[in-house]
Amino acid sequence: MARAPAIEFWYEFASTYSWLAASRITDAAAEAGVAIRWRPFLLGPIFSSQGWNTSPFNLYPAKGRYMWRDVEREAARLGLACRKPAPFPQNSLNAARVALFGADEPWGPHFTRAVFAREFEEGASIEEPSAIRDILRGLDLDAGEIMKGATGDANKTRLRALTEEARSRHIFGAPTFFTEDGEMFWGADRLDAALAWATGERPGILR
Amino acid sequence: MARAPAIEFWYEFASTYSWLAASRITDAAAEAGVAIRWRPFLLGPIFSSQGWNTSPFNLYPAKGRYMWRDVEREAARLGLACRKPAPFPQNSLNAARVALFGADEPWGPHFTRAVFAREFEEGASIEEPSAIRDILRGLDLDAGEIMKGATGDANKTRLRALTEEARSRHIFGAPTFFTEDGEMFWGADRLDAALAWATGERPGILR
Repeated sequence: MARAPAIEFWYEFASTYSWLAASRITDAAAEAGVAIRWRPFLLGPIFSSQGWNTSPFNLYPAKGRYMWRDVEREAARLGLACRKPAPFPQNSLNAARVALFGADEPWGPHFTRAVFAREFEEGASIEEPSAIRDILRGLDLDAGEIMKGATGDANKTRLRALTEEARSRHIFGAPTFFTEDGEMFWGADRLDAALAWATGERPGILR
Repeated sequence: MARAPAIEFWYEFASTYSWLAASRITDAAAEAGVAIRWRPFLLGPIFSSQGWNTSPFNLYPAKGRYMWRDVEREAARLGLACRKPAPFPQNSLNAARVALFGADEPWGPHFTRAVFAREFEEGASIEEPSAIRDILRGLDLDAGEIMKGATGDANKTRLRALTEEARSRHIFGAPTFFTEDGEMFWGADRLDAALAWATGERPGILR
């Protein structure tokens, strides 16, 4: 039996379009017969190195204003409410550490979706460790044990390495998808194209 | 008989995604029963005012490198070759003046598509008046007459006013679509959503 193709899903918890992608990637990938490798990372260091000290949606107000309307429309298409958390962007460090700690565990994807739902469907904070613990408990998980592992040196180092890997692979935004042959797709709008590519489909006349 | 709904199509000749949108908007709008108002404008003054002196795809190399691959894939889907003109971005002033001069004429959309095809399918220059005259002659148009009107004071003033209107309506990129009720859609990926909105469709749970 052939191994299923896979895509890497690089996401940032502060990113609205990462939320939209996370909310439907499990179903879409299952339908396409594609496995998902979850890659929670931090976009902040990448933005900093190009001179941005906050979200480009804050730096460029016209773009930011549009983004919230676009996300509201796209969320509605998925049947989701859209609420802006304060502050925006949220500090995503604690959530990213836990999501990475659980990335290969059965609970990982559930945690990821729950964080995004709290942040962008309820508009509540995901910044403090207490918020993360609440989410873990809501999933019937051992919050104490998981927080301990997530904040341990090994996992912290792994998150830093993953963020460095994002930079070295020229990731400049989130979500970003990679197929196994290294094809890159940026943005929630490219999820279906990435899944199609992973299954061997090539658009039109492309060689 | 009810008047057909319409969308405004704001495009910049230096923009690859404007090319992709222009290459299919006539067919897509006809199929949706939506009229098109052609709005060629200059994005340069808007980029300048946010501190950019060239295309963001040049300012942010990782994003630029990705863009060309993404555009190549999207063009392939439409059956189009993709070639990068030098320099990129092209100075689009002459093309924009002529496109605006013909925006409400039957030849306008043909001219717009021919400029984009020369620039991004052939990778040839659209900067010089001679290039614009070549394109007009290729469409069996009176190049001398049209160039005279396009470079007249009235048309120059009209292009400046349109670019000011773009800014005042918070346009930050191209292509941008507006429906008659003022809903804004940015990017070639949102053309179908804009057409659907124009015909009264609303996504999912959106009120």
